[in-house]
Amino acid sequence: MASNSFGKIFRITTWGESHGRAIGVVIDGCPAGLEISEEEINQELARRAPGRATHTSPRKEPDLAEIYSGLFEGKTTGSPISIIIHNLDADPSKYEPIKGVLRPGHANYTYEKKYGLFDYRGGGRASARETACRVAAGAVAMKLLEQEGISCQATIAEIGGHVEKAEIERALTEVEKEGDSLGGVIAAEVSGLPVGLGEPIYYKIEAMLAQAMLSLPATKGFEMGEGFRAGKIRGSGQNDLFTQSEGRIRTRTNRAGGTLGGLTSGMPLTFKVAFKPTSTIQKSQESVTHSGEKVTLKLPKGSRHDPCVVFRALPVVEAMAALVLADALLLNRAAKI
Amino acid sequence: MASNSFGKIFRITTWGESHGRAIGVVIDGCPAGLEISEEEINQELARRAPGRATHTSPRKEPDLAEIYSGLFEGKTTGSPISIIIHNLDADPSKYEPIKGVLRPGHANYTYEKKYGLFDYRGGGRASARETACRVAAGAVAMKLLEQEGISCQATIAEIGGHVEKAEIERALTEVEKEGDSLGGVIAAEVSGLPVGLGEPIYYKIEAMLAQAMLSLPATKGFEMGEGFRAGKIRGSGQNDLFTQSEGRIRTRTNRAGGTLGGLTSGMPLTFKVAFKPTSTIQKSQESVTHSGEKVTLKLPKGSRHDPCVVFRALPVVEAMAALVLADALLLNRAAKI
Amino acid sequence: MASNSFGKIFRITTWGESHGRAIGVVIDGCPAGLEISEEEINQELARRAPGRATHTSPRKEPDLAEIYSGLFEGKTTGSPISIIIHNLDADPSKYEPIKGVLRPGHANYTYEKKYGLFDYRGGGRASARETACRVAAGAVAMKLLEQEGISCQATIAEIGGHVEKAEIERALTEVEKEGDSLGGVIAAEVSGLPVGLGEPIYYKIEAMLAQAMLSLPATKGFEMGEGFRAGKIRGSGQNDLFTQSEGRIRTRTNRAGGTLGGLTSGMPLTFKVAFKPTSTIQKSQESVTHSGEKVTLKLPKGSRHDPCVVFRALPVVEAMAALVLADALLLNRAAKI
Amino acid sequence: MASNSFGKIFRITTWGESHGRAIGVVIDGCPAGLEISEEEINQELARRAPGRATHTSPRKEPDLAEIYSGLFEGKTTGSPISIIIHNLDADPSKYEPIKGVLRPGHANYTYEKKYGLFDYRGGGRASARETACRVAAGAVAMKLLEQEGISCQATIAEIGGHVEKAEIERALTEVEKEGDSLGGVIAAEVSGLPVGLGEPIYYKIEAMLAQAMLSLPATKGFEMGEGFRAGKIRGSGQNDLFTQSEGRIRTRTNRAGGTLGGLTSGMPLTFKVAFKPTSTIQKSQESVTHSGEKVTLKLPKGSRHDPCVVFRALPVVEAMAALVLADALLLNRAAKI
Repeated sequence: MASNSFGKIFRITTWGESHGRAIGVVIDGCPAGLEISEEEINQELARRAPGRATHTSPRKEPDLAEIYSGLFEGKTTGSPISIIIHNLDADPSKYEPIKGVLRPGHANYTYEKKYGLFDYRGGGRASARETACRVAAGAVAMKLLEQEGISCQATIAEIGGHVEKAEIERALTEVEKEGDSLGGVIAAEVSGLPVGLGEPIYYKIEAMLAQAMLSLPATKGFEMGEGFRAGKIRGSGQNDLFTQSEGRIRTRTNRAGGTLGGLTSGMPLTFKVAFKPTSTIQKSQESVTHSGEKVTLKLPKGSRHDPCVVFRALPVVEAMAALVLADALLLNRAAKI
Repeated sequence: MASNSFGKIFRITTWGESHGRAIGVVIDGCPAGLEISEEEINQELARRAPGRATHTSPRKEPDLAEIYSGLFEGKTTGSPISIIIHNLDADPSKYEPIKGVLRPGHANYTYEKKYGLFDYRGGGRASARETACRVAAGAVAMKLLEQEGISCQATIAEIGGHVEKAEIERALTEVEKEGDSLGGVIAAEVSGLPVGLGEPIYYKIEAMLAQAMLSLPATKGFEMGEGFRAGKIRGSGQNDLFTQSEGRIRTRTNRAGGTLGGLTSGMPLTFKVAFKPTSTIQKSQESVTHSGEKVTLKLPKGSRHDPCVVFRALPVVEAMAALVLADALLLNRAAKI
Repeated sequence: MASNSFGKIFRITTWGESHGRAIGVVIDGCPAGLEISEEEINQELARRAPGRATHTSPRKEPDLAEIYSGLFEGKTTGSPISIIIHNLDADPSKYEPIKGVLRPGHANYTYEKKYGLFDYRGGGRASARETACRVAAGAVAMKLLEQEGISCQATIAEIGGHVEKAEIERALTEVEKEGDSLGGVIAAEVSGLPVGLGEPIYYKIEAMLAQAMLSLPATKGFEMGEGFRAGKIRGSGQNDLFTQSEGRIRTRTNRAGGTLGGLTSGMPLTFKVAFKPTSTIQKSQESVTHSGEKVTLKLPKGSRHDPCVVFRALPVVEAMAALVLADALLLNRAAKI
Repeated sequence: MASNSFGKIFRITTWGESHGRAIGVVIDGCPAGLEISEEEINQELARRAPGRATHTSPRKEPDLAEIYSGLFEGKTTGSPISIIIHNLDADPSKYEPIKGVLRPGHANYTYEKKYGLFDYRGGGRASARETACRVAAGAVAMKLLEQEGISCQATIAEIGGHVEKAEIERALTEVEKEGDSLGGVIAAEVSGLPVGLGEPIYYKIEAMLAQAMLSLPATKGFEMGEGFRAGKIRGSGQNDLFTQSEGRIRTRTNRAGGTLGGLTSGMPLTFKVAFKPTSTIQKSQESVTHSGEKVTLKLPKGSRHDPCVVFRALPVVEAMAALVLADALLLNRAAKI
């Protein structure tokens, strides 16, 4: 099924495998007249690139986005914007030795069962490399949001259960030494929102954000506002009371995380996303082959992976939030006669 | 925007306000030949009805679903199935006194801002009553899943932070006495699944479940498998190792919660949904009117609400899971030539 | 597949069989604040009803539309509008004698092959009765268009090859006497349109109108502007030259039928729709049963059918045009930043 | 709005301008396991290329399609197939002199009004060059249809009102000499179809074909089977009578054009598409500029255009038919339990 698209009006379609010629995204439905440049897109992509943070995979992807269509004299024309990122550093040969092995936490088993075949090279379509396209498209969505004064910021809330920078650093160094990996949690906040974005019932802001975030590789959880803590408390402790200040209605607290009835309340959107530890680890793991034979999976030295994905996931979470909100902004134009 | 539909092939569209003439759902895309009866649908609806559990609102809704189309001689015909539930117990007059007040945790403020008007009676379209239609449609989806040996079970994981039945009971009695409410968490499990359901990238099983669950009123969080705990541990502790037993490949553990790369792995789907405490409470709350004047909101005696929504949400969570999986099952038919 | 919906933002979903309890339509995505009443909808439905024109089926359907949701104090709220028309005159028993026979020009053969069963009563879902729901929804769309000064008018262009009223009358009287039927052509014009409605490439105005019209039962052709005549002439004879008059750019002629590049040009939309003769005729016809046995199909006296569908199709064509344009109007709100 | 996509399950998204770096298409939803090569796609593209027929534009586009993703060892993987055609022959400078002029029959006026700007170079997105992407995607769809024994053939039915080859040749030579152009009609037939493809009501085969064909540049009409002639005759002359021959039910005639109730009847699909004469002509034409000033439009010598588009439109019509039917084939897999 056509499942590589996201969004109703501001709609992206991504394509490409991690070890093919290129990956890319087509943005269809971006309004005309928006100024955007390759530089702005590549700035966002650079944030996702390895090497910026410590503890990220040594892969040297330049990740240069090129705009192939949809722009005229620096502005969007209303036509689809095709962005292509060439894979310069693709070397699928190192996946040869393990191509018959079911890799724990990876998609090769399920893809092979679904499709009858699997492009094993670097995870094929299931690789997190696809998220570069989301970041590229998200950069365009963010420009649209900026015009309305909306901004989005993702930060690391915890890694391996630690919240303090020093402890996180120590824990990462430790797992790296042991060839292991760590999970983490990202917190995000969107501010500058008008009241009433989102569409009732099935396209509530939190529903679209939840789909967006759980569509990211390695994600295991989503919380809006108080999240699971809301399951532990009383209504009198959860309800955000309305008040008026400076001629504007707002709530005194923001436990809801910025929505009421699925629509933005004017308060900042706050949500969290949980990421599992990277599935690719250097430690030996028991597994089986596609035909069921027992094997011990031990990755070749020099295999590329991050001990923790959350560093590189920060711009991806922001991009997905921007895509959800750009779409909501445009959908909202049809709310009233 | 047309946001009252859910699903790609097995698609539902719900309509109706809590205090209007009726609410209803149109199921479009249900395959022909499925046996289904009003009795089976009403059985599911009865599970959602108040009065079955203690601590539920005293509203006396009979909630009788009537099938208006799409059936012939007891079987689905491939034509849309229209199910209507008449509102016999609708008395909007009791909402008159508070119609100008912004109710904490409710949608009247955001709806009014989005649409320029708001049907205040009982929450209008934003009422949880809409979920009765999801349960009715879910009953049809479940019949389809049953044919494939798939079943779904939701249970209460915690209420107000308590997991023991006796403690939950005590906590609920206490908040009821005080006119307050409690949040809770539902855990669900889907078993009997084939390998490979779900569509990569944006329609991953966990992404669709997350959208489905966060589209429910009062939900604040979603976890797949280990959920947020996965953010605290190591890869060697999270990875589910493959093994073969009885000629079948499976994983020894199921920390992932039943998916790999967004596709079902053949292990049971396990997920959790967090619900905030009911926003409607008997306690006095400070608020403002639509025009910003300070008021104290005190509900009239006899207002109907549940101190905790999770009891009645159990069949709703199951219904949404069934809708996601029925759709995934049909989409999967196009995976291979 | 979910094929009972039409429209992207202003989206309708129809349901119901001709001889079931009721038929209905859910309009999802109508902007809030539009004044609409049951009376206005029923006025449009009355135009489709038999008995108004001569040469229409004697079926006595009252066709009373009832609005079940989506309205508050006479205005749309942005929530789905559910409209239900009860089938008061359904008597499926008269279809019993011919239920095993493949009826020429009817859908019972193809439906039975597709779905493995067929609700034979009165054509089931394939009956033209479904178009009453389109008219009801179209009446709401038309109200939206009226607000923008847009109006739509369908007229009879020819019946049985005749264009003169007297000749048409004589031809119809003749076929009725002989138990036969006649085809016809409807011409429609939409005026008051702004420049630029429609979406490029696959949702061009003419593409959406063509889908809309060919989705109507008994339609066999669609022409925009000059239509098939454009296939016979030269570019210098087809091109509409631009000019300026009264400060407004327009074209001197309108051979294109009101679009350029799939977008409205500001000139009236003009298009034609061809309808085949009613398939149900009183004459004996050779056919076979579902199992292939030869039979002679001779309808029982008193079977209801129109000798020519175009009279009753006039408001249906207008309704479909209104639905296409209401959707285009809302989609266009997202064209520019 | 996201209008550059076509299809529900087998879904294409096209992008690119005629004078940009490249044009391309993403096919999402093609089942896994289909053998396809760049050669097969380029064979279809070659049929659309100029120079093959006389009377086609002298533009020297190599039109080489390159597959960037979705294939593994010569077979589709179920992942999106990205096909890119680089624009090697793009020279937008020749459009400079006429960039301010409204060109009769072209989209520059309506695009400029809709989007507030227009990429004038060679028609921008509105150029017929976009149809190359449809042909590339159609080649993949055709491979899928071939597996089921389905084939599609488009032929020239008439040009400039002529049906005889010699007369057509003479008429074309004449208009070319005069710098004018001619319209034409294409007839297409799809054979080898099973019974029951298509989805009732809004996605009928004829409705989807009509949308597909009228989404092509320069099209003005669509006829199914007898088309507009059906509007002139009697039911007894239009109805196709059922019979049984060689153990198979079929109709004696095929005036309907291969569908009943919008579903394929097992008889060949037959339909016609009318194309207007090429809007670009060498003759002088009166027009105005964007600001309304009178000008005489006279194309520079050497401007590229075909005197008649139908030669190059043949593979495009086949491609669109293939896309409609590949989608219908996959949708049909969900018809029954």
